[in-house]
Amino acid sequence: MKIIAFGIREDEQVAVDVWMTKHPEVQVHTTSELLKPQTAKMAEGYDVVNILQAGIPVGEETLSQLHDLGINILTLRNVGTDDLDFDVLKKYQFSVSNVPRYSPNAIAEHAMIQMSRLFRHMKQMDIKVYNHNLAWAPTIGREVRKQTIGIVGTGNIGRVAIQIAQGFGAKVIAYDKFHNPEIEAAGLYVDTLDELFEQADGISLHVPGLPENHHMIDENAIAKMRDKVVIVNAGRGNLVDTDAVISGLDQGKIDGFAMDTYEDEGGLFNVDWTGKEFPDQRVANLITRDNVIVSPHTAFYTWTASEEMVEQSLDAGLAYTQGQVPEQAVKF
Amino acid sequence: MKIIAFGIREDEQVAVDVWMTKHPEVQVHTTSELLKPQTAKMAEGYDVVNILQAGIPVGEETLSQLHDLGINILTLRNVGTDDLDFDVLKKYQFSVSNVPRYSPNAIAEHAMIQMSRLFRHMKQMDIKVYNHNLAWAPTIGREVRKQTIGIVGTGNIGRVAIQIAQGFGAKVIAYDKFHNPEIEAAGLYVDTLDELFEQADGISLHVPGLPENHHMIDENAIAKMRDKVVIVNAGRGNLVDTDAVISGLDQGKIDGFAMDTYEDEGGLFNVDWTGKEFPDQRVANLITRDNVIVSPHTAFYTWTASEEMVEQSLDAGLAYTQGQVPEQAVKF
Repeated sequence: MKIIAFGIREDEQVAVDVWMTKHPEVQVHTTSELLKPQTAKMAEGYDVVNILQAGIPVGEETLSQLHDLGINILTLRNVGTDDLDFDVLKKYQFSVSNVPRYSPNAIAEHAMIQMSRLFRHMKQMDIKVYNHNLAWAPTIGREVRKQTIGIVGTGNIGRVAIQIAQGFGAKVIAYDKFHNPEIEAAGLYVDTLDELFEQADGISLHVPGLPENHHMIDENAIAKMRDKVVIVNAGRGNLVDTDAVISGLDQGKIDGFAMDTYEDEGGLFNVDWTGKEFPDQRVANLITRDNVIVSPHTAFYTWTASEEMVEQSLDAGLAYTQGQVPEQAVKF
Repeated sequence: MKIIAFGIREDEQVAVDVWMTKHPEVQVHTTSELLKPQTAKMAEGYDVVNILQAGIPVGEETLSQLHDLGINILTLRNVGTDDLDFDVLKKYQFSVSNVPRYSPNAIAEHAMIQMSRLFRHMKQMDIKVYNHNLAWAPTIGREVRKQTIGIVGTGNIGRVAIQIAQGFGAKVIAYDKFHNPEIEAAGLYVDTLDELFEQADGISLHVPGLPENHHMIDENAIAKMRDKVVIVNAGRGNLVDTDAVISGLDQGKIDGFAMDTYEDEGGLFNVDWTGKEFPDQRVANLITRDNVIVSPHTAFYTWTASEEMVEQSLDAGLAYTQGQVPEQAVKF
């Protein structure tokens, strides 16, 4: 059995090598090339195509080539399937898998570290030190333990974020339409999102980017929040109305913002723009602010998560070739 | 009763104002001036002198003036008494207090946030984003929960650091000559400092700067540590042989270093060097490294700690004028 894995990064190669030692019967060929109409023919002779796409569409032009090569198994190393044309996948009777669940700690840690940095005014201090200003004042911080931290969404990631916040000694409140029994038993839920907005000093978003959650953080929501609120979005870009947050920052209502996901991130993130014209002035502006921390959708990006994503996607491909339906199968 | 408080910062003024509303019988005059031979005469008419010194000696020239003004109560808003000439204080029969214990969370939070940032390679990503390089690779992080975190010193601060590290889900080991019963019961102690060096992925120092602890982290200690170790010093500057750490960083043995205290920090930290010649090339070099985070002894610098330091020092001054010996009294 032969798998071709497109767009493999160096950190992923390590995980591929480990997986291959466990599966000597499978040959995995890796390439840093992304799967595109121009590269699809590289899949000739393989049984499974394995990808991690970021903003590159996989449609008729690519899939017809794979179909002609006799390939009908496509396994994703990530969760998002936005790039796939499912009508075409259906026409050619593709089996598709993704990785809906991997290390929740990667993202939860990132969210709580950035929130803590914002409470403690650490980016301000980093910039001062960089400029050789070693004066203490006025860069005084708020202790994390003295804050009320509001976690929106108590799935796998939100629940790890709660444990971290509690380790700091912070008061935690949580909101989710679906109540987790442990969080319920601990008495952390508030009844409405508005209650969370009214009580929290820091808010971290861990809900899916469903249409009903679109711009959950908008002008109206921000108006209900406490003065000097800190907001972290390591969830999905569309949860936050970026202009509303910028306005809240400008007014001093929002004391800090950490943005790992962004509503217009497609084609912008995971690209090196050094020496090129930066295409998004809104993000360029956010990057320069001393109370905003931008990261390019890398909260997930740990060795543990990378390993789990590679391993699960290769497992799924193997399962398909053995006539099984893996638990990571995408239904469409 | 009248107190004069020298060197008051804006954040401290807030705490002074709160204290005064609780003690309407006491008059507190504040000034941003430091106590020096040139400013000592400002204390005329006051009963208590309250200071927070940083590298400004308080000796004969200053104390004789206070003595001539009839003042013999000196209260410090911080812990360190290094600037005081105790022989002269004894001669003039001064009563002296300091603030040996205030919010341990301020420092413990700082240490664990910086250690987490270093594990996750967040300063590298901050710099890339600042330069508009939004590529993920090679800036992959290590999850905090997968690390073994070694806490040296299990006093008030070390124990809070342990709670935070455990909230992340990390494995914690600890070393202290004096065993705390709770940490003992939790089975966290290793028997020797060498064992901690050999097992820890991250090491945080929370012991006093006693002569026996001088350069606890030296070339010899670093050689015993795990490859890619992360070291945080928010304890005392003299605990770390800075040159040995720089050598470890250069060799790639040390993957990250957070330095909040520095062996030559006197006269360097809490000064704005913007536009002036920066006097310490070693620190200038450390600041530019993408795996080193320098802060100017500000781990303690939170609203909570500032309030507690102001409040305790004013309480101590009041106690002395009422003929009591406050618990913050310095014995000499």
